[in-house]
Amino acid sequence: MELTGRSIIGFRSGSAQGKSSFGFNPATGERLLPAYTAASAEEVDEAAQLAHRAWAEFRRSAGRERAIFLRQIAKNIEALGDGLTARATAETGLPAGRIQSETSRTGYQLRLFADLVEEGSWVDARIDRANPDRQPLPKPDVRSLRRPLGPVVVFCASNFPLAFSVAGGDTASALAAGCPVIVKAHHAHPGTAEMVGLAVRDAARDCGLPEGVFSLLYGSGSEVGMALIKHPLVKAGGFTGSRSGGRALFDAASSRPEPIPFYAEMSSVNPVFILPRAMRERRDQIATGLHGSVTLGAGQFCTKPGLVFMAKDDNAQTFAQKLGALMVGTPEFTMLTPGIRSAYQEGVTARVHRAGVETIAHISTAPGPGVAHAGPALFQTNAESYLTDPELSAEVFGPSTLLITHAAREQLLEVARRLEGHLTATIHGTEEDLRDYADLLAILETRVGRLVFSGFPTGVEVCHAMVHGGPYPATSDGRSTSVGTRAIFRFTRQICYQGFPDAGLPDELKNANPLGIWRMVDGQFTQEPLT
Amino acid sequence: MELTGRSIIGFRSGSAQGKSSFGFNPATGERLLPAYTAASAEEVDEAAQLAHRAWAEFRRSAGRERAIFLRQIAKNIEALGDGLTARATAETGLPAGRIQSETSRTGYQLRLFADLVEEGSWVDARIDRANPDRQPLPKPDVRSLRRPLGPVVVFCASNFPLAFSVAGGDTASALAAGCPVIVKAHHAHPGTAEMVGLAVRDAARDCGLPEGVFSLLYGSGSEVGMALIKHPLVKAGGFTGSRSGGRALFDAASSRPEPIPFYAEMSSVNPVFILPRAMRERRDQIATGLHGSVTLGAGQFCTKPGLVFMAKDDNAQTFAQKLGALMVGTPEFTMLTPGIRSAYQEGVTARVHRAGVETIAHISTAPGPGVAHAGPALFQTNAESYLTDPELSAEVFGPSTLLITHAAREQLLEVARRLEGHLTATIHGTEEDLRDYADLLAILETRVGRLVFSGFPTGVEVCHAMVHGGPYPATSDGRSTSVGTRAIFRFTRQICYQGFPDAGLPDELKNANPLGIWRMVDGQFTQEPLT
Repeated sequence: MELTGRSIIGFRSGSAQGKSSFGFNPATGERLLPAYTAASAEEVDEAAQLAHRAWAEFRRSAGRERAIFLRQIAKNIEALGDGLTARATAETGLPAGRIQSETSRTGYQLRLFADLVEEGSWVDARIDRANPDRQPLPKPDVRSLRRPLGPVVVFCASNFPLAFSVAGGDTASALAAGCPVIVKAHHAHPGTAEMVGLAVRDAARDCGLPEGVFSLLYGSGSEVGMALIKHPLVKAGGFTGSRSGGRALFDAASSRPEPIPFYAEMSSVNPVFILPRAMRERRDQIATGLHGSVTLGAGQFCTKPGLVFMAKDDNAQTFAQKLGALMVGTPEFTMLTPGIRSAYQEGVTARVHRAGVETIAHISTAPGPGVAHAGPALFQTNAESYLTDPELSAEVFGPSTLLITHAAREQLLEVARRLEGHLTATIHGTEEDLRDYADLLAILETRVGRLVFSGFPTGVEVCHAMVHGGPYPATSDGRSTSVGTRAIFRFTRQICYQGFPDAGLPDELKNANPLGIWRMVDGQFTQEPLT
Repeated sequence: MELTGRSIIGFRSGSAQGKSSFGFNPATGERLLPAYTAASAEEVDEAAQLAHRAWAEFRRSAGRERAIFLRQIAKNIEALGDGLTARATAETGLPAGRIQSETSRTGYQLRLFADLVEEGSWVDARIDRANPDRQPLPKPDVRSLRRPLGPVVVFCASNFPLAFSVAGGDTASALAAGCPVIVKAHHAHPGTAEMVGLAVRDAARDCGLPEGVFSLLYGSGSEVGMALIKHPLVKAGGFTGSRSGGRALFDAASSRPEPIPFYAEMSSVNPVFILPRAMRERRDQIATGLHGSVTLGAGQFCTKPGLVFMAKDDNAQTFAQKLGALMVGTPEFTMLTPGIRSAYQEGVTARVHRAGVETIAHISTAPGPGVAHAGPALFQTNAESYLTDPELSAEVFGPSTLLITHAAREQLLEVARRLEGHLTATIHGTEEDLRDYADLLAILETRVGRLVFSGFPTGVEVCHAMVHGGPYPATSDGRSTSVGTRAIFRFTRQICYQGFPDAGLPDELKNANPLGIWRMVDGQFTQEPLT
């Protein structure tokens, strides 16, 4: 596939005139062609206008039509094959195997949402039947269901060039809901974005969908991103990235004349608690698993465990030595961008010099030709230092973690009480540990979106029950999830029909239940038609 | 019951020292004792601290325990009997029958939420079972459910002293979810608020709930209200009132260091569309019904129809005359407060003098001893004037409406396209009209929360399918509803458990399904236990 370096605006290409930037190979330092041109203010407006017009038709499309579209996107992406892997690998420094598994995940997500909207029960159809004889006033017939909010802006994430980017979870869930999507590409993988963007555009055209159901714009977050989120025809946004970037966009979304929902998944340090019996019984196994989780993808996951709490004893010391040895034995990483590498190195260097922090393992690595090479780092402190030094709670994005030993159970509870919102918390324990630490679990339930027992938080399963969200600052809206089928709810609102004749109702609410979906009828769940 | 004039802070009374204000009888101008003292900054903090501490226990209470609490609140309020009716009538100028029916509605709401949480399926429990043999990676066991957000601040509404006030829909849904509630009383009915507040406090104490599960604070929105919404331990807010007040609180909630959801139901003009065949067949019947809907409760409903669109023809003229005659024959009203009366009179006077607007009926009324008396008003204009004069789209809160005639169908569609967000839109039509105006309906679906067919928008049914919400500025969060059982979702977020032993899971997620609730297991709805 020949890359053009242009935005995709509906079915046409954007201009080649304007500010431009290049992809970059962080492993080699090579500049990757072509130059990518930032969208102009006019192009932003055009994409929004097209999306708004497309919405009039797209929002009324049947679930089975949107399912065909989503499956076609998956097929088109998979058909990109080795070309996609090669470009994504070059742009991100991630290994080919990771890109291939992320491509699989992206296809799986698209098909899961296709299945969801084809089946149809997700709309939460509810029917309360009329009762003309009710006293003192007759009861009207009231029916309602979920409908799409309107055009959605999706911001690509640097660390998931496929699964959280152009056709990632946000896009899949928004399209599944019936919302047109305008994607703001990430500068770290513009070529990957274009390849996937053209795959989506072709699917839209081949499925006979209206122009504007999808656009892909290049440019900076502060210009193109802000212009999109402030555009009056845009009705929601989804973002995965930094806390500062996410908050700035959230603030813009909330302070519009018409505020809109903005779902930013921002930062999370993902505390891990190793309880006493688990430490005794599975110490080395936990150390090995933790090493894998901390260094997976060079630690560039929002679910990377960045804090590990354990009682101060001999086992803890052995655990730290074991984990340190594994870290030292880890080959160096190529990080996603020189900027991410530099932020990581700063974070690590600060910890090396921090009072009260011991450096257990820190592999200094030459920056490499792309100035993106880095080595793992392991630090240790105690609960006293941790509780008095807020910097130690901050995210260090990369292959590093901090062990914190406590001398008393009350310290552990105090640590938990002081946690900010996180995506995950992990407890390594036996069932007996879990009973003994019910108070710890009760606190953690108020701090995170997902609790992991005796496992690792990286590797977020795409399924119906997943919650990839959590209280601020893990996300800007802790009521939501960006992974799993519940993600579709973010881009919808309920609409109610009162006293309508059957023929005037959407299929989901008709008496005969022609789609055979689950509905709540007079408070009872049923798939039966109304008689 | 002897009223104390003090806030209720957990199980104790607030101070009697501080700024004070009185209830006021808008019918007689009489000042109502006792004086009500505004909560101090310390009392705001104390209520929030108590709520936070109570939450640790209350959020883990069983649905059946919260159901007992909600039913006890309903009983306690009903036991207030004539005393409550007398005080509420005196404070609001609303007739006794209205207060009694609102008391019934309040009890019904509380019991509906009691039934909902006792049954338990509302938590949206989801289970995706493990598959250790999945390739390339084992699939973990993932389960999730809805949990309460934390302490919620509820702002009382002036126009519903019971159903949208101390123990109204917001409080009922928040308590049902497991959130402690801090109510900010409305200055228009402080005595009613105290009577109901003591009923809630007594129910909390008698049910053995922790202190702080409920507090009631007096004071202004700009001081006490703002302090509550900015308090770091407060996690959500619910509000029914003016657009300026709602937006100011929403902005405060969104710009906190930790933004919180704030559900403001603010303003809505509730357009009505009378289609041709319905106008021919049911003209007089619609006029009579509309008169009842516009003047119900002195027009002081957020669902009052304030814009009525119809084709310009002889029937429209007769309709306007008929409605005008009904308006003229309407007895004068006592409005809720002199302030609301004065805003209403200003709005009416502005319309009387507006170019392009014809006054069809306008009953001038002496202000009365409480300076709160007002008469109905009916205005008419045409679509050209309406489309060029934004003031005509504004809400006039009170017993007034505006008829707008159009000369062409395209004008009607343009009117619909230009609508802001509203709570409701109403279509009077035959089934044939509905088919002919499918394009109108398609536009209205994007503008409102509830579509009413051949009925009237006032009288919001409390049921499972109700949506009392709508796009901004009808509400600050169009994804939600403040009436009906879905209102509980506003005060919850999902929490996920991965890899937990059965004993460590909440009852809702245990294999045996001990609560017998509906759950989604591997994507299928079922009440069965897992085997």
